[in-house]
Amino acid sequence: MVRFDKNKIKSLEKIYRLNLINSCTGYKSANLLGSIDSEGNTNLAIFSSITHLGSDPAMIGFVLRPRTVPRNTYNNIFNTKYFTVNHVKAEDIKDAHHTSAKYPKEISEFEKTKFEPEYLDGFKAPFVKNSKIKFGCKYLNEYNIKENNTILVVASIECLYVGKDFLEDDGWIRLDKAETVTINGLDGYAKTKLIDRFEYARPKK
Amino acid sequence: MVRFDKNKIKSLEKIYRLNLINSCTGYKSANLLGSIDSEGNTNLAIFSSITHLGSDPAMIGFVLRPRTVPRNTYNNIFNTKYFTVNHVKAEDIKDAHHTSAKYPKEISEFEKTKFEPEYLDGFKAPFVKNSKIKFGCKYLNEYNIKENNTILVVASIECLYVGKDFLEDDGWIRLDKAETVTINGLDGYAKTKLIDRFEYARPKK
Repeated sequence: MVRFDKNKIKSLEKIYRLNLINSCTGYKSANLLGSIDSEGNTNLAIFSSITHLGSDPAMIGFVLRPRTVPRNTYNNIFNTKYFTVNHVKAEDIKDAHHTSAKYPKEISEFEKTKFEPEYLDGFKAPFVKNSKIKFGCKYLNEYNIKENNTILVVASIECLYVGKDFLEDDGWIRLDKAETVTINGLDGYAKTKLIDRFEYARPKK
Repeated sequence: MVRFDKNKIKSLEKIYRLNLINSCTGYKSANLLGSIDSEGNTNLAIFSSITHLGSDPAMIGFVLRPRTVPRNTYNNIFNTKYFTVNHVKAEDIKDAHHTSAKYPKEISEFEKTKFEPEYLDGFKAPFVKNSKIKFGCKYLNEYNIKENNTILVVASIECLYVGKDFLEDDGWIRLDKAETVTINGLDGYAKTKLIDRFEYARPKK
C-alpha cells in the first residue's frame, strides 16, 4: 500500500492531489444540470456531487466551489430558482464531459454538444431530451461550508421522469439497465453492472 | 416515461418512495465507516453519502439522518473525532450491507461480519483490513440542514492508503481495477468498468 499522510497530501503537486483526492472517496453520480437565465440563455454543466438528502420531502444537495469565480449554473439557479438534473448514458460521456469547458454565459453548452433542450409540463428550466432519468428541482437554501469556503446547495425535487423499462415494481430504478454512468475522480467515466440487491438488514441472532 | 410530480411523490407508499428517490440521483459511493467509542467498542457501518468536498485541504462530507435515534457511528465520531472510510469490493457486498442492521453498541459489526479491524500507524479508529483503498478522517464540523433536519458532517482526510496496483502516475486511482463497487438506491450494489478518461475540457473554437 502507498501511504499519504496529511503533510504529504499537502505537499503533492496540484494536479496529482486533485486526481488522488477526487478518486479516493469512491464512485460519484454523473448528472447534467440544466438551467436558464432571465434572458433565456441556457446552460448545461456536468456535476459529480449530486447527493440524496432525503425522500420525504424529496431533496437533493450538491457542492459548488467558491463563488469568487463567476459560475453560470450557480447564478442561474440562484436567480431563477429552478434547474434540472439529467442522467448521463455511456454513449454520451464525451459530450457530457465537454460541458465542463468554460464558455461565456451567452454561449449555451446545448449548442456546443449533441444534447438538445426540452421543456416539459411547464417547468422553467431545460431538460436534456435524450436523458431517460431526469428531474426538475427548486432551490431551497445554501450552506457555506466555512472550512473550505464551498457551498452546499439544497433543493427539492419538483417532478421526476423515469423510462418505464428501468422502473421496478417497488419504485427502485435499475440504473445499469438505463446505462447511467458513474464518475471516477475528475475525468473518468465507468459503466456498471448490477451484482445484487439485498433485503433490509436485520441483526443476526 | 413515467412522470411523478411533487404531489404524487408525496402520496407514494413509503418504501416505494424510498426506493425511487434514493435511486433517482444516480450512483453513490460505497464505503464502510469504522469508528470506536471511549470504552473500546468498535463500530462499522455502510454509508452511501460520502462526498468529496475539496482537495486542498483534503475534505469529505457525509449526511446523517436526524439525531433523535441513537446512532453509534455519529456518537463515536462526535465523541472521539476520528473515523475511517474503507472501500467495498464486489466479493464483500453481502457483509457490507449487513453492517446496516441495528445492533446495540456493545456488539461490533466487526464480529458479525467477515471484516477484520486493523489499526495503522497510531490512528485511533479501526480500518477494514482487507480494504485496498482507505483513509482516516478527523471530524471538523457539522451543519444542520434545517429543510429536513439532517446533518452534514464535514471531516478532513488525515491519512490515505492506496494499493499500488490501482494508483496511476498522475495520482488518479483506477477504481474498477480495485473492484470498488457503487450503490444503486438503498440496497443495490454494482460493479463497474472504466469506459474512458478525458482531458481537461476547453471551449471549442
